[in-house]
Amino acid sequence: MEAYQHMKKEGLLALKKGLTAQFEDIKGRGLSLDMSRGKPGAEQLALSMGMLDVINSSSDMKNDTGVDTRNYGLPDGLPEAKRLLAGMVGADPEQVIVFGNASLSIMFDAVSRSMTHGVMGSTPWAKLDKVRFLCPVPGYDRHFSITEYFGIEMILVEMTENGPDMDVVEKLVKEDESIKGIWCVPKYSNPQGYTYSAETVKRFAALEPKARDFRIFWDNAYAVHHLYADEREQDQLPDILSLCKAAGREDMVYEFVSTSKVTFPGSGICMVAASEGNRKDFLQHLKIQTIGHDKINQLRHTLFLKDMDGIKEHMKKQGEMTLIKFKTVWGELERELGGLGIGTWTYPRGGYFISFEALDGCAGAIVAKAKEAGLVLTPAGASFPYGKDPRDSNIRIAPTYPSLEELELAGRLFVLCVKLVSIDKILESR
Amino acid sequence: MEAYQHMKKEGLLALKKGLTAQFEDIKGRGLSLDMSRGKPGAEQLALSMGMLDVINSSSDMKNDTGVDTRNYGLPDGLPEAKRLLAGMVGADPEQVIVFGNASLSIMFDAVSRSMTHGVMGSTPWAKLDKVRFLCPVPGYDRHFSITEYFGIEMILVEMTENGPDMDVVEKLVKEDESIKGIWCVPKYSNPQGYTYSAETVKRFAALEPKARDFRIFWDNAYAVHHLYADEREQDQLPDILSLCKAAGREDMVYEFVSTSKVTFPGSGICMVAASEGNRKDFLQHLKIQTIGHDKINQLRHTLFLKDMDGIKEHMKKQGEMTLIKFKTVWGELERELGGLGIGTWTYPRGGYFISFEALDGCAGAIVAKAKEAGLVLTPAGASFPYGKDPRDSNIRIAPTYPSLEELELAGRLFVLCVKLVSIDKILESR
Repeated sequence: MEAYQHMKKEGLLALKKGLTAQFEDIKGRGLSLDMSRGKPGAEQLALSMGMLDVINSSSDMKNDTGVDTRNYGLPDGLPEAKRLLAGMVGADPEQVIVFGNASLSIMFDAVSRSMTHGVMGSTPWAKLDKVRFLCPVPGYDRHFSITEYFGIEMILVEMTENGPDMDVVEKLVKEDESIKGIWCVPKYSNPQGYTYSAETVKRFAALEPKARDFRIFWDNAYAVHHLYADEREQDQLPDILSLCKAAGREDMVYEFVSTSKVTFPGSGICMVAASEGNRKDFLQHLKIQTIGHDKINQLRHTLFLKDMDGIKEHMKKQGEMTLIKFKTVWGELERELGGLGIGTWTYPRGGYFISFEALDGCAGAIVAKAKEAGLVLTPAGASFPYGKDPRDSNIRIAPTYPSLEELELAGRLFVLCVKLVSIDKILESR
Repeated sequence: MEAYQHMKKEGLLALKKGLTAQFEDIKGRGLSLDMSRGKPGAEQLALSMGMLDVINSSSDMKNDTGVDTRNYGLPDGLPEAKRLLAGMVGADPEQVIVFGNASLSIMFDAVSRSMTHGVMGSTPWAKLDKVRFLCPVPGYDRHFSITEYFGIEMILVEMTENGPDMDVVEKLVKEDESIKGIWCVPKYSNPQGYTYSAETVKRFAALEPKARDFRIFWDNAYAVHHLYADEREQDQLPDILSLCKAAGREDMVYEFVSTSKVTFPGSGICMVAASEGNRKDFLQHLKIQTIGHDKINQLRHTLFLKDMDGIKEHMKKQGEMTLIKFKTVWGELERELGGLGIGTWTYPRGGYFISFEALDGCAGAIVAKAKEAGLVLTPAGASFPYGKDPRDSNIRIAPTYPSLEELELAGRLFVLCVKLVSIDKILESR
């Protein structure tokens, strides 16, 4: 393939003509496909249907310790649910508080609580002139929405294959007391699928923040979401909690995990794992906010998934399904865009996304073009604070939700859009 | 029976001796009974076990409109869940947002949101010098805990059999811009079991608050919790939402309801019903805080309870069970305390509680004495802001959780404690 940048105008225009015809052809088919979010596919959801049978009207509804899960009690969660969720990230069950159906809500509430009540006795953030968060980019849009909602200023930090640029992180948190947190998806990151290196995690645990109320929001959302069953092909992430503790900074981190993409999105269970001091903050808030979370659903999860072996077995099947989808996208990208110099993409070994880097200034136009033909992608810029990608180049591809057939068509449409927009961009810039 | 106040010292002391022996006898049995919270009894929970069968691994998991309830989507709830919950309080399903497992969390989050973001564009309460709430007393302790947690000053308003003293409420909200809300349990109130009269509800809808961001927190927790199946023996409560709308004040009220005490505490579903302007506030917050609530549990509830006829049928059985418990308590109180002049109690026609008024200064001592013999009651003062009952006279009795056998013993112990503490009090005050 000849790189587009090296082609002459006439060649590009001729190419465009043919591509436009192909685009119009697909557009004419009346495609209606939403690939905007990381949603599991129907075949993945089917794997968890057995969870709906482990409890029925004949069940005794008691947990391991004899508590009736139907009634009030155990606001911090069933002990077996703590063990199950702790196991997913290698935390100690003693560090865990089980919450409801969405770890995002724990994070939201933690920020909200810090605004109104401070962090372990610190000044409430709402009373400070300025509160800042570090935001590795590209990153998870819903994290950035939380900080934006609370008027917290977001500072962009470049992501690398090994995690955030730690030189920048170390310097900023050490110098600036207004920096109160950093958003992290440390394993199979959203959207690039990068896993923080052992060195990066070590540097996180060794951070010397000027603000005593600085917290690492460690959203380990894809802790068990490997594409490959062979452990040698799985990314490994050191346990941040024990590293922070060893470094004498056990209060510096909150770790989150959920089963939203293990069982059912919206009907899963989730947790925070943290130091005793932090857990006190969480519990004080929790006990005013609710009488308790859904313990029947906790019981359902523990009876179905049982333990880490059960989770591994379950996620192995999901990994196989996800890998087929990822390979479909990769195949299309390689076949159609390889060597053209108009885009690069990531090859994660887990998680939910492939991150695509278009030519600068092209992402918005590509997403708009795809929409014109009935394919809704994640809005360009979504992976950046305030929805603004400074280079307008990043597109998050979420391959899991469509069927394979839909995904093939979506892939063909996507590369057509990339080509057409890139040709215009190249011609325009000459 | 001779009233204790009219008895001579010698008579009282002789009486005390006999009562003390009875108390020691019960104490010796090693009773361990927790009646501190309004928890459904096992026989009530058993009525909802069928709900665990309506969804299983063979279910198609689609709602009425064809949405896969297992996946993300419909953050404001399934349409059929909106209809079901709206029906419980006579609201319009269009006014409803379905939330998770606890209406208390909706209230907490509404206050928290008002602190950080204000109410429909008003100044965030955290930026105001003073924020006050009106608290009808005795009332629901968890309401007061929320306002206390956020540093909101609480002003006590006396409850009557017809609801809060509306002369006071009208005057205060009209004069004082710092009054931003009032906590209400308008039907079968916690703890007295009073239902606001039609006149009271009308006066609520006609309030003229000085603060534009004043909201009535209308916690209709016991909307369908009648003790008697005959409608003529059920309390009726006018629909506050339509009355407020008719009065041109549709933004003034948030109404809450849940199935926590219809199906399973902690594993129910809940909602807020409110005006369009208020719903925007709730939705803006909700969409940042979560991707969505547990739709499978919403589906489970709608398939099991079906509609208002289904709820009525279900609650009729619960009412029968609750009535037996209430009658057991009333019988003991009447038999043992009738005519003694040392306590009065309420006869609600629904809800979860009987409210007991001891002699002034006796409630704390009665609760402590019961605990000495193994019976944990709701802490004295719990029904008042800051846990402080100015007269130290109110005790909340929660009869639903114990078995009938336990309840009989608890009742006997309770009246003994009332008698012993009252004798001491009377002697002390002479």
